[in-house]
Amino acid sequence: MTITSPAGFRAAGVVAGLKSTGAKDLALVVNDGPTHDSASVFTANRCKANPILWSQEVVKDGVVRAVVLNSGGANCYTGPDGFQTTHAVAEQVATRVGIGAGDVVVCSTGLIGLANDRDHLLAGVDAAYDALAADGGNAAAEAIMTTDSVSKQVVVEGAGWSIGGMAKGAGMLAPQLATMLVVITTDAVVPAADLDQALRAATRVSFDRLDSDGCMSTNDTVTVMASGASGITPSLPDFTEALTQACTDLAMQLLRDAEGADHEIAITVLNAASEDEAVECARSVARSNLFKAAVFGHDPNWGRVLASIGTTQATFDPADLDVAMNGVWVCRNSTPAEDPTTVDLEPREVSVTIDLKSGDARATVWTNDLTHAYVHENSAYSS
Amino acid sequence: MTITSPAGFRAAGVVAGLKSTGAKDLALVVNDGPTHDSASVFTANRCKANPILWSQEVVKDGVVRAVVLNSGGANCYTGPDGFQTTHAVAEQVATRVGIGAGDVVVCSTGLIGLANDRDHLLAGVDAAYDALAADGGNAAAEAIMTTDSVSKQVVVEGAGWSIGGMAKGAGMLAPQLATMLVVITTDAVVPAADLDQALRAATRVSFDRLDSDGCMSTNDTVTVMASGASGITPSLPDFTEALTQACTDLAMQLLRDAEGADHEIAITVLNAASEDEAVECARSVARSNLFKAAVFGHDPNWGRVLASIGTTQATFDPADLDVAMNGVWVCRNSTPAEDPTTVDLEPREVSVTIDLKSGDARATVWTNDLTHAYVHENSAYSS
Repeated sequence: MTITSPAGFRAAGVVAGLKSTGAKDLALVVNDGPTHDSASVFTANRCKANPILWSQEVVKDGVVRAVVLNSGGANCYTGPDGFQTTHAVAEQVATRVGIGAGDVVVCSTGLIGLANDRDHLLAGVDAAYDALAADGGNAAAEAIMTTDSVSKQVVVEGAGWSIGGMAKGAGMLAPQLATMLVVITTDAVVPAADLDQALRAATRVSFDRLDSDGCMSTNDTVTVMASGASGITPSLPDFTEALTQACTDLAMQLLRDAEGADHEIAITVLNAASEDEAVECARSVARSNLFKAAVFGHDPNWGRVLASIGTTQATFDPADLDVAMNGVWVCRNSTPAEDPTTVDLEPREVSVTIDLKSGDARATVWTNDLTHAYVHENSAYSS
Repeated sequence: MTITSPAGFRAAGVVAGLKSTGAKDLALVVNDGPTHDSASVFTANRCKANPILWSQEVVKDGVVRAVVLNSGGANCYTGPDGFQTTHAVAEQVATRVGIGAGDVVVCSTGLIGLANDRDHLLAGVDAAYDALAADGGNAAAEAIMTTDSVSKQVVVEGAGWSIGGMAKGAGMLAPQLATMLVVITTDAVVPAADLDQALRAATRVSFDRLDSDGCMSTNDTVTVMASGASGITPSLPDFTEALTQACTDLAMQLLRDAEGADHEIAITVLNAASEDEAVECARSVARSNLFKAAVFGHDPNWGRVLASIGTTQATFDPADLDVAMNGVWVCRNSTPAEDPTTVDLEPREVSVTIDLKSGDARATVWTNDLTHAYVHENSAYSS
């Protein structure tokens, strides 16, 4: 159940001394091949961290041989000196593994605006290299945790090949990714161009539709590496389906571990004129602090759902919207319908269904409720 | 200091029985002329309440002779029957005052999705008519309060004429207005077309730049009425300046009374390529839950400011942004600068200044911090 489950990969997670707690804080994942195809997506935030600036260049040729990740410091808004730290880490990995630095993706997570200790990082790379193991996936997944309460891992089995994945992230999940680091491995044979196509299809309906608090992080990276060690070339649709399953599973693990949340909320928009409009409406609800606070208070407040939809430019008749919460159609034709007191908001999982009656497209966006614990964690923790 | 300070207006605030607390809940403002010029702006939310649907038609001819407002029920998402309630209230006002119903603006605020009791409203109109007085402004301002902790009123004096205003609203303040009702009176002579131009100029830099929680309400209305009773016609620039001063004063009163807030935050963007881009950047910061929670926690987290700006399409160099908090330039060139621990976030008033170094335009957007009390009030109160 880890990134070293697929053949052709070694990994390690070690203590580099970046975290004041003394917990593991540096992970290394190496693709031993025979192939080294890769694809990546990064945060859409224009104010990107140094590791992103580095890794965006690394991935352009479709070849990635190693990913090195640290928690305990995001190396973000640290200027040219911070970029040199990222570069030095990549060089150290390259030297030890015997590859080029231009094939090493670097990821960092933790506090923003503070320089990472370069010596700690470089020593950590050495320790991680020495610890590399074919069963090192669990240690790597632990080493990338920040405010995560659990590590997130997944394996999806294909016909003679498999996909493994690990993720970190808890809160700050937003469209086009957010403080989220994801490494995915596969021993299938998948050329870089196909990997890219599959990854974009998979993230579009998984990570891109998580919107925990509307904020967009500076360091988000999803990298997939294919070792080809199984010798099997799946069809692109089969691989895409498996990759989507892996990404969705990891996304739901991220959602369930969002900082301070009491509820996971799935907002599904039905009968929209287009999938984009369905996403637009669902996201507007996912970003309503008033709605999210109401769910925390166990109040099936469909009025706040309509008020959110009303801020979009999607196609619908404002006087003819239906809204269900946990299957109870509390609003029909934009007026009160079934008794809201029959909606049980005690369970963590909440579904909101919105019928736009304007087409046949649909989409789901996931979010969390707005809780006291969210405010507490995000007022006390600098990121 | 009230809407009846300018000559030519009478007002009242009475108990109609809509609020379970027995507090005043119905207000009536009548313009006795000699002129009846008016202008209004309404919420941009497409899912509008019934009073908005009514009043949008009323104001089209530039003539408004009375405004009737109730708290204790928003008459929103209540369907055709709710619209008939609004209509009946306007007719009752018209009958008693001796004017046409088509000159009566109706405003409602309170819970969404619940029908207002029509009999209570009509009896309330009768009581309010009987109570109309040239010093009734204070009572009217009290009657429109919902979760407001204080009534909001203002007077701005011109040369022989004046402007009076009242507002209700506490939280849910967002661009293009939000659960906010504002009535402004003036005894200046101002033709409707000029009033409209002045009102749009005034709201653009006041109410439109309040963004307490990013949510947009369904009932927001700002109506200005000119009685002409002073006989004086100010220049349009003079009148616009005074109206802007009145709107800004009321906006700041709304900001200071936002539900559960501990801080008022003024986010100013300097040296933007355009005013629109300055507003876009400032608003993106104002909508960052992470940033707002950090202010609550007294954490001068400029990294979250940069991360918010990075989500916009404004013109700037991501590696060359400066950020000050309460006058301390904690970030220069997108890297750490002055010591953040010297920023004192104890006082309620917080200023954030962002230098985009891309032009000479500027704008300020106001918001509040994200607090435990915000979550509590909005999880416990249905709106």
